[in-house]
Amino acid sequence: MKHLSDIEIAQGKELIHIKEIGAKLGIKEDDLELYGKYKAKLPLHLIDEEKIKLNNLVLVTAITPTPAGEGKTTVSIGLTEGLNKIGKQATAVLREPSLGPVFGIKGGAAGGGYSQVVPMEDINLHFTGDFNAIEKANNLLSALIDNNLQSKCCNFNLDPRAIFWKRVIDMNDRSLRKITIGLGGTANGIPREDGFNITPASEVMAILCMATNFKDLKERLGDIFVGFTFDKKPIFARDLKAENAMAILLKDAIKPNLVQTLEENPAIIHGGPFANIAQGTNTIIATKMGLSLSNYVITEAGFGADLGAEKFLNIKCVAADLNPKAVVLVATIRALRHHGGAKKEELNNPNIDFVKAGFCNLEKHIENIRKFNIEPVVAINTFITDSHNEIEFIIEKCEELNVQAVVSKGWEKGGNGTKKLAQAVVNVVEATTTQFKPIYNWNSPVKEKIEKIAKEIYGADAVDFDKKAKLNLKRIDRLGFNDFAICMAKTQKSFSDNEFLVGRPKDFVVTVREIEIAAGARFIIPILGQMMRMPGLPGVPASEGMTIDDDGVISGLS
Amino acid sequence: MKHLSDIEIAQGKELIHIKEIGAKLGIKEDDLELYGKYKAKLPLHLIDEEKIKLNNLVLVTAITPTPAGEGKTTVSIGLTEGLNKIGKQATAVLREPSLGPVFGIKGGAAGGGYSQVVPMEDINLHFTGDFNAIEKANNLLSALIDNNLQSKCCNFNLDPRAIFWKRVIDMNDRSLRKITIGLGGTANGIPREDGFNITPASEVMAILCMATNFKDLKERLGDIFVGFTFDKKPIFARDLKAENAMAILLKDAIKPNLVQTLEENPAIIHGGPFANIAQGTNTIIATKMGLSLSNYVITEAGFGADLGAEKFLNIKCVAADLNPKAVVLVATIRALRHHGGAKKEELNNPNIDFVKAGFCNLEKHIENIRKFNIEPVVAINTFITDSHNEIEFIIEKCEELNVQAVVSKGWEKGGNGTKKLAQAVVNVVEATTTQFKPIYNWNSPVKEKIEKIAKEIYGADAVDFDKKAKLNLKRIDRLGFNDFAICMAKTQKSFSDNEFLVGRPKDFVVTVREIEIAAGARFIIPILGQMMRMPGLPGVPASEGMTIDDDGVISGLS
Repeated sequence: MKHLSDIEIAQGKELIHIKEIGAKLGIKEDDLELYGKYKAKLPLHLIDEEKIKLNNLVLVTAITPTPAGEGKTTVSIGLTEGLNKIGKQATAVLREPSLGPVFGIKGGAAGGGYSQVVPMEDINLHFTGDFNAIEKANNLLSALIDNNLQSKCCNFNLDPRAIFWKRVIDMNDRSLRKITIGLGGTANGIPREDGFNITPASEVMAILCMATNFKDLKERLGDIFVGFTFDKKPIFARDLKAENAMAILLKDAIKPNLVQTLEENPAIIHGGPFANIAQGTNTIIATKMGLSLSNYVITEAGFGADLGAEKFLNIKCVAADLNPKAVVLVATIRALRHHGGAKKEELNNPNIDFVKAGFCNLEKHIENIRKFNIEPVVAINTFITDSHNEIEFIIEKCEELNVQAVVSKGWEKGGNGTKKLAQAVVNVVEATTTQFKPIYNWNSPVKEKIEKIAKEIYGADAVDFDKKAKLNLKRIDRLGFNDFAICMAKTQKSFSDNEFLVGRPKDFVVTVREIEIAAGARFIIPILGQMMRMPGLPGVPASEGMTIDDDGVISGLS
Repeated sequence: MKHLSDIEIAQGKELIHIKEIGAKLGIKEDDLELYGKYKAKLPLHLIDEEKIKLNNLVLVTAITPTPAGEGKTTVSIGLTEGLNKIGKQATAVLREPSLGPVFGIKGGAAGGGYSQVVPMEDINLHFTGDFNAIEKANNLLSALIDNNLQSKCCNFNLDPRAIFWKRVIDMNDRSLRKITIGLGGTANGIPREDGFNITPASEVMAILCMATNFKDLKERLGDIFVGFTFDKKPIFARDLKAENAMAILLKDAIKPNLVQTLEENPAIIHGGPFANIAQGTNTIIATKMGLSLSNYVITEAGFGADLGAEKFLNIKCVAADLNPKAVVLVATIRALRHHGGAKKEELNNPNIDFVKAGFCNLEKHIENIRKFNIEPVVAINTFITDSHNEIEFIIEKCEELNVQAVVSKGWEKGGNGTKKLAQAVVNVVEATTTQFKPIYNWNSPVKEKIEKIAKEIYGADAVDFDKKAKLNLKRIDRLGFNDFAICMAKTQKSFSDNEFLVGRPKDFVVTVREIEIAAGARFIIPILGQMMRMPGLPGVPASEGMTIDDDGVISGLS
C-alpha cells in the first residue's frame, strides 16, 4: 500500500457540511457564520459560564521535545476522536497554524496522518482571516506611532530609540528582522531602527488569546505599552487613540472558528500565539466556547510541559478561572532516547538503555503536573522504530508512579488507535474531585514569581538577574505592572536555559537576561536566552515543492 | 431631519440573505461559497462565454476630477438601482476598497448616501480576504528573493541593486516607503535598499485583475520580472519556483465576491488595482461573471476618462474581448467650475461663467469616448450648491453634441433618483450596433502606442522621452516585451502631465520620465510624473474618530 501524505489523506475525506458539526454541538444553523461549507465562525453569545463549570477541560502537553516535536496536535485530535468513539461528547480546541512556516520548513499544524482537522489546506493557509486581522491591527498601531513621530500637530515627543512596538508579517522572512525605516527625506517620516516579527509573536495575538470578551479586548489593546518619550513618560496605544480602530479590525477575529476532524467530530481552532515569548495556547474565548458546547474539551499548549503547561495553567487558567481535570503528557520513545544521551544518528534505533536513562525527563514532568494538583496520563506517541521493550519499560515505570501510560496510535488509526488513551483520560477526569492550584500568586513580587517557576518547575537552584534584567525590574515597578502574570521565554530543548542539558538537569542556575512587558496581555516576559521571533526560509523552501493544478487542487502542502 | 452618515444609512438597512441575491442571478444555493449571511464567493464555472456576448457592459467614468472625486462609484451603484427600477436586470461590478485609506483620510469606497453596497463595514475592512491573499503572495515572492540572495545552494547571483520587486502592505504607512533591510549580521540576510508599496499597487493585484482563469493566473505569476543578476540576466518569479505557492495563496481570491446594494440588487466586488500605475478597474473574471449572470453590468474605472476609460478599453476590453455598449461620463458642476478657472474657495458657489469656461473638459472627454466607437451619456452628479442655470447649460451644450446629459440623484434618492439616467443608458445601449475599437494595436511599437494615447486622448502635440525612459525602451526591447499593452501613469488632475493645466489644455508636450515593466500583468508603465504608491496618514488619522461598542457596532467609518 502506498504511504499517503497528510494532504492526500485529508483530500481523500469527503467532508460533511459544517452545519452538521454545529448540530452535534447543539448550535442552531442561524448562529453559524459560514465561511464556505466547511468552516464557520461562532458568535460569542454561545458562551455559557454555567456549562463551562460542568464540563471537562483536558490539556495535552509533552515532555521536553526534540526538534521534530512530540506530536501534541496529532495526539489532541486523535484523543478527541477516541473519546467520541467511547461515547463521550468531545471537542478539540486548538491553535491556528501560522502561514509563515507553511512555506518554510516546519509545514502546517493541522495534525497528521489519520488525526487531522480539515479542510487542512484552508486551515493552513488564510483560514478565516484571523491572522491577517491581527497583523493589520498590529501594523495600524505601528503606522500611528510613526505618524505621531513626524507629526506637527500632536507630537508626543516619542523617543525613536525607545519604541518597543514592532511591525509583524506572517511570513518567514529573515531580512525583515532588522531594518531602518523612514528614509528618503522629510516626506517619508523620521528615520529609525525597526524590525518585523512573525505575526504569532505579535502582542495583539497574545491579547486576542487572553481577552474574555470584546470589551476586555478593547481595553487590553488600549493598554499596549508603546515606548517612552524623550522625558521618559510611558506612551500607550490609548494615547494614540488606537484601540477602537484596532478593535474594529478584530471584530470578526474574536469569534472562534469551527471545523471538523477526519472522523466528523467538532474542532474549534482559534488564535495561535508563539510558545516562546507568549502563552502558546489558543484563545480563552475558544476554550470557553468549547466548554459551553461540549462535555470534553481537548486542548494543547506549545513546547514541553515546563513551558506550555506551566503557562497554560498559571496564566490562562488563572485569568479565565478554568479548572482542568487532567493533563496528557505526550512522550515519544525517540525523545526519551535523546534525553538518555542518544546522538542524533542513534535516535531512530531501539535502545532500552537510552530510554531508561531518559525516563527522568518524563518523571520530572509528571512531578510538575502534580504540583498543580492535577493528575497526568502519559500518551506514548509511537513510531515503527519503537521496540516492545522500550514501550513496556515506560508503561511499567509510570505504573510505579501511579500514572497510566498508554500507547497512542491516532496518527495511524485515528480514533480506533486512541480508545485506550481516551478511557485512561476519562478515568482520571472522573476520579478528580479537587481544584487545580497555580504555582504562584499573580500578586506576589515579580522576582519571587520568576524564582518559583525556575525552582519548582525547571528544578533550578537559583535565578541570576543580569544587569539589564534588574533595570527592567525597576521599570516594571515604576510602571505599576508588578501584579502581571509571568510568561517565561526559555529554550524548549531543556528544563534549564542551556539547550544542551537534556534529561533532568540538576545543580544549575538560570539567568534572566532582560524582561519585556506585554501590558495589554498583562504578562511580563523574562528572557532567558535568544528568542527567535522571525524565522527564515531554508535553502530549499517548502514552497518550491508545492503545486496547484488548474482546478485548484493543491499538492505538496504539509 | 438629521443628516445621516453613510454608515448610519447602511446600518439602518436590514439586509436580505445573500442566497436571495444569488437567486436573482439564477445561482443555485449550493454554488454560493458563503462568508456569513451577506457575502459569498462565486465559483468560476458560472462564467459563460456565450452569455457574455449577449449581455450589455456599461462603463462609468468621469471628467477630469477634483480631489474630492466625481462620485463614480456612487453613480455606478445608483445607476444599477435605476436600471432595476425600470425593469432591467442589472448588476454593479466594482472594485474592492483598500484598507489603508479607510484609516487615513479618504475613507472607504462602497458608494455613498442611498447608493451603497452593503455590508459596508465588511466591504471596507477585510471583506473576504482577497487583499490579504494578494499581499501574502506578493511578500512570499519577496521573501524568496531575499532568501535566494543569501543562499549558498541556489544563488542566482542577483544584483541587490537591481531588484524591482517590492514588498506591500495594505496600510497608509509613509515610513515604509524607503527602508533598508537585511541588517544585523550574517544571520539576517544581505543588506539592501527596499520599500513597501500599498497592496493595491502590487503587480499581483494587477495580475489577478487581468487573469482570465486559474491557469492564466499561474502563468502570469511566473512571468513576474524580479530583477537582474550581476551579469544582467533577467530573473523571473518562475526562476524562484514561486508561481505555484503564490497561486495557492490566491486560490480563493480569484473568485468574485457577491454582495447587495441598498435596494437589494446584486453587486459583484472583486479586485482593486491602483488607477495610476495600474489599470484601476475590477477583475476581468468579475466582469465576465457579471455578464454571464446579468443583462446589464455597470462597472467603473479609476480617475478621469483619460486614464480610467482609456485603460479599461485599451487594456482590459482588448485582453478580455469585451464589447462595452455605452460609457457614462460623470461630471459635477463643482469640477466644471474648477476647469473654468474657479479657485478653491469659489468651487461651491454657483457661477455660470466658470461652468461655461470649464465645459471644454467634458467636451474633450466626450470626443475621446467616441474615438473608441462608443456613445457616451453624461451623468450630472448634483449637489445642493448647484444652480438650475448651470445644470441647464450642461444639458443644452451636450444636446448640441448629440449627447444626453441627465441629472443623477442616486446619492440622495437611490434608484428613484436615477431612473432617467438609466433610461438614457438603455437608449444608447439599444441603439448600439457597432463594435468598440481600441485606440492602438498592442502589436505596434511601444513608442508609437504611447504617442497615440498622448496625442489622441490627452491632446498633446508630442511626447518627450527622458534619457532614462529611452534606456528603459531598450530594456523592454531586449526582454521582448514590445507587444505589451500600455498602462499610462499620469496625474489624474489634468489631461496633460502638469496637474495645474485644467480645462482642455492645448499646445503641450508630455514627458515620459521612465518606463516600468509589469511582465505578469503584460503591460508596460510609462511614468509621466511622481507616482504615489504608499500614502501616508494625515495629522489626525480617520482611525482616531472611529469607535466600536461592546456589541461590535461601529461608528465613524466612512
